[in-house]
Amino acid sequence: MTVNEKIAALRAAARANGADGVLVMTSDPHCGEYLPDHYNALPWFTGFTGENATLAVTGTESALWVDGRFYVQADKQLAGTEIRSMHDGAAGVPKVAEWLADRFAAGQTLLLDGSCAPTDTVRKYADALRPAGACVKSLDVVSGIWGEERPALPDTPCFLLDASVTGATAAEKMDAVRAELNKAGATALAVTGLDCVGWLLNLRAHDLPCTPLAVAHAFVGAAGCTLFLAPGRLSDADAAALAAQGVDVRGYDELLDFVRAYDKDETVLVSPASTNYDLYNALSANPHLTVREGADPIQALKGVKNPVELANIRECHIRDGVALVRFEMDLEKALAEGKPLMETDIEVMLRRRRAEQPGYWDDSFPTIAAYGPNAAMMHYHAEGEVNSPILRKGFLLIDNGGQYDCGTTDITRTYPMGPLTDNERKYYTWTLQSHIDMARAVFLDYCTGFALDSFARGPLWAHKINYRCGTGHGVGFIANVHEGPQSLRPQNGVVFKPGMTITDEPGVYETDEVGIRIENELECVDAGANQYGNWLAFRPLTVVPISTEPVLVDELSRVQIDWLNDYHRWVYDTLAPRLTEEEKTWLKAKCAPIGR
Amino acid sequence: MTVNEKIAALRAAARANGADGVLVMTSDPHCGEYLPDHYNALPWFTGFTGENATLAVTGTESALWVDGRFYVQADKQLAGTEIRSMHDGAAGVPKVAEWLADRFAAGQTLLLDGSCAPTDTVRKYADALRPAGACVKSLDVVSGIWGEERPALPDTPCFLLDASVTGATAAEKMDAVRAELNKAGATALAVTGLDCVGWLLNLRAHDLPCTPLAVAHAFVGAAGCTLFLAPGRLSDADAAALAAQGVDVRGYDELLDFVRAYDKDETVLVSPASTNYDLYNALSANPHLTVREGADPIQALKGVKNPVELANIRECHIRDGVALVRFEMDLEKALAEGKPLMETDIEVMLRRRRAEQPGYWDDSFPTIAAYGPNAAMMHYHAEGEVNSPILRKGFLLIDNGGQYDCGTTDITRTYPMGPLTDNERKYYTWTLQSHIDMARAVFLDYCTGFALDSFARGPLWAHKINYRCGTGHGVGFIANVHEGPQSLRPQNGVVFKPGMTITDEPGVYETDEVGIRIENELECVDAGANQYGNWLAFRPLTVVPISTEPVLVDELSRVQIDWLNDYHRWVYDTLAPRLTEEEKTWLKAKCAPIGR
Repeated sequence: MTVNEKIAALRAAARANGADGVLVMTSDPHCGEYLPDHYNALPWFTGFTGENATLAVTGTESALWVDGRFYVQADKQLAGTEIRSMHDGAAGVPKVAEWLADRFAAGQTLLLDGSCAPTDTVRKYADALRPAGACVKSLDVVSGIWGEERPALPDTPCFLLDASVTGATAAEKMDAVRAELNKAGATALAVTGLDCVGWLLNLRAHDLPCTPLAVAHAFVGAAGCTLFLAPGRLSDADAAALAAQGVDVRGYDELLDFVRAYDKDETVLVSPASTNYDLYNALSANPHLTVREGADPIQALKGVKNPVELANIRECHIRDGVALVRFEMDLEKALAEGKPLMETDIEVMLRRRRAEQPGYWDDSFPTIAAYGPNAAMMHYHAEGEVNSPILRKGFLLIDNGGQYDCGTTDITRTYPMGPLTDNERKYYTWTLQSHIDMARAVFLDYCTGFALDSFARGPLWAHKINYRCGTGHGVGFIANVHEGPQSLRPQNGVVFKPGMTITDEPGVYETDEVGIRIENELECVDAGANQYGNWLAFRPLTVVPISTEPVLVDELSRVQIDWLNDYHRWVYDTLAPRLTEEEKTWLKAKCAPIGR
Repeated sequence: MTVNEKIAALRAAARANGADGVLVMTSDPHCGEYLPDHYNALPWFTGFTGENATLAVTGTESALWVDGRFYVQADKQLAGTEIRSMHDGAAGVPKVAEWLADRFAAGQTLLLDGSCAPTDTVRKYADALRPAGACVKSLDVVSGIWGEERPALPDTPCFLLDASVTGATAAEKMDAVRAELNKAGATALAVTGLDCVGWLLNLRAHDLPCTPLAVAHAFVGAAGCTLFLAPGRLSDADAAALAAQGVDVRGYDELLDFVRAYDKDETVLVSPASTNYDLYNALSANPHLTVREGADPIQALKGVKNPVELANIRECHIRDGVALVRFEMDLEKALAEGKPLMETDIEVMLRRRRAEQPGYWDDSFPTIAAYGPNAAMMHYHAEGEVNSPILRKGFLLIDNGGQYDCGTTDITRTYPMGPLTDNERKYYTWTLQSHIDMARAVFLDYCTGFALDSFARGPLWAHKINYRCGTGHGVGFIANVHEGPQSLRPQNGVVFKPGMTITDEPGVYETDEVGIRIENELECVDAGANQYGNWLAFRPLTVVPISTEPVLVDELSRVQIDWLNDYHRWVYDTLAPRLTEEEKTWLKAKCAPIGR
């Protein structure tokens, strides 16, 4: 089938169901950032392979909205099809909802698969169509067309992490969730986020690349908990361990039936942003259940790591640090030997060194290795024909991370490959100042991500430079490399607490010139109390030297220099016991104090 | 009448009206920070003279809540009366609402004067009593008891500021208000804040000490505007000027009758926080009026100063700067001559120098002159027996300001009086760093007061020191020295815009040791746009040298030193043309660059 034939099939399916159009989104029943191929229909239907798009098909038209990262790619991949490429966010381009509102008339119906769309997204489209007298109906017409070419649901072996790794049993976590539900006036929770299910039951698998989670749902009630997972995926021992903690197991696709048949009276806390529309409706329709809208308490609970998790996270960062040291030595050797290097070589070199470390499972995301101006594109990923040679000048930006049996890492370093321009040194130095000012912040315990974000932006803003993204995000524990609810970014209202982990990754991205980012993970720590209140601070988790060669030392303040030298002393002391003499000598030089 | 007799009278009045208790607050019909003595009943009823208290009287008990500034004073002034002194905010002390909820039973009634209480405050107490089945009733029993000793309403001559001073006519301001009302889906506004009435109609008087406003209300409708002001207070010429702009004038006490009789259909925007309860109810009860709750648009409009106002504000700061230079020279002379100085002498010395300046009307608030440890009390005011001698060591903190015919000023300097301790120098230096980091901030146009506040707190937080107040507040234009909606403080969500003025006044307050504050007013300015967005920055309005003698120069970064030296160069260049040769020589030395 061609793309146009597939679109025609969607159109025909709408007509056959008495409707006038179809909407297909990058979304799945779990409303997460990372979705299994089984649910990722848009590449097959449209030929567009980027993340995060929305396809609208009416009786006569079709259009695909993509964000700024993918304008060029969408134009190229949609060329020759009937689908119009819509640059979402560009001036003069209507939003999906506006476009639909202009095209649907009274009595007309738009189909979308409510089992694969967040409730608040469906509400947004319904609100847009209502003034015209048109409506939205939940119906899956995608499956019938996609048919045999559709990838199966993932089915990798599932396993439970021991409480010695996670610091809390599933039973303890359920108690914590119930305590939070109680505070919110609720008794039950439908858990649909893969990371939330994984956190709650200490359940992991390898269902998604780079993300060691299982495709599953759960339902926590006042008295029990049910896990919805495809049969046969749990070992008997793990199934018994869950049963002993009050967890019943049913089939993955039984959640909706379970909700419809639920006959105990409960108040269910539901987040419309992370609960799919069909599930929301099933919960609302059951007279035994009262729906109360609110934030999913698991988000906040898993955002704060417990002491066992933190000890494990620190260990995985030491392993990651050893791998990164060896990688950088390999890189320098290759450069010294004049070996031709392409961007795509970097991922291989890194994975080789990470794989030497105990407990390494996978990368935590596809490595970004971006040479020179390529690094100015924040979401650049070298692959296939998109691949540049690494020259012996300028910077190489490498953003990467690992999944270990004791944690998840995320780190960016920007390495000098040879001579640097004055601008490159300036941008590097200012980025480093931003990184340091975030890392050394001491603050009171009422500070939100928005308030803290200012510390990182200050040094770059002084030069009227900004990065068009957050300063940092939460990191999952053996889970999603991006995790909420905390983040360092404008508008984020989550108050920081000890035990939260966060990335600190300011950058400079000058189009066609250079991209620089310096990223450590930080742990939020208690810094003591005095008459003024409870103080918090950050402590680095990442144990990898930061290149000092590009630094314009005179731009740094004394406290910034002291932070960097202290960091490097700690990096050396922490990694040295796991390194050879040759590696120690190399690292000693990389960690040499500056500005003395 | 003794205090106990007055309380007994309140109790009797409640009984006589079929009620069971009375609540009296520091509040007036205008819901402002500064209230005329006419409305300030609590000093007369209780003997407590501090600001901001709440008195509750039941059939058998009475209690007065005061905040942390006034614990000691209230204990002293209430001693010997039946009124219990309640330390509001202290551990174990019930809040007013909790205390009332514990004492009122089903069917009982609490009286309060709803014409003198914000709607949301009354709602809070009504909500607290409702679960017990008790209720709140608006009734003024205060006036009948206070009787002849009650001060009359102020009646100073009113006058209109010319548009050459304010930059906009009343007609233009009404248009601006109507445009904002329209955005909020409303057509009318009851204007009750004295500063809001003053801004809207360019109306001023000297009804309150330090605050050149008139006690008046206004009502803006879709087609007209009515000013409620006591008869005879406007000159015929001013009354005619207002009439020509569509402003009708009625008696001050006619507002409620006017609202009740209003017969045009309007949607009235009402802020429950700044609209008194009786007015709110009158608006709600009129079937022609639809009440829509929302923020008063005048707050946001007057928070951004127009170019004419800004030019005038800059001029008044130059005058203030000249006065402050002469004052500091007088102070140094007195110290050099060994003249005994008390804290209360400072206000007199300052006023003498300000009075030499053209267009000086009044101070903008009672001068705070606090020597040594007294300055650690943030709201210290020397007066009567509270008065310390100024020794020749340590610091003298002076927070003061003026009302001129072209603007309102607010400035704090902390002057060394002789030898300083190491701690004093450290605290002074860190305070200065905080002040400078706020003043030199460059930021994008989405920043709120909360996000910006971090810039100022960072340098003090690094030493685990905080000040328990905002970094700064808005300043009225020939009006209240404290003005919203913008402020630099935690939780403030107002986004900064060019033309906003704000104080920058971080401090260190170490109990029984020292108090330090350094305050300039700043103007938020457009700093240009580039690919990253629209940049904003601050420019100092205050033109007064900051003592450099206490500064530990090595603690300052290069950019902080540069800011200070640039500031002092500008102070000298700006003031010199208005100074004598002797004064110029003195100022040149005070403005000498440091760290070179």
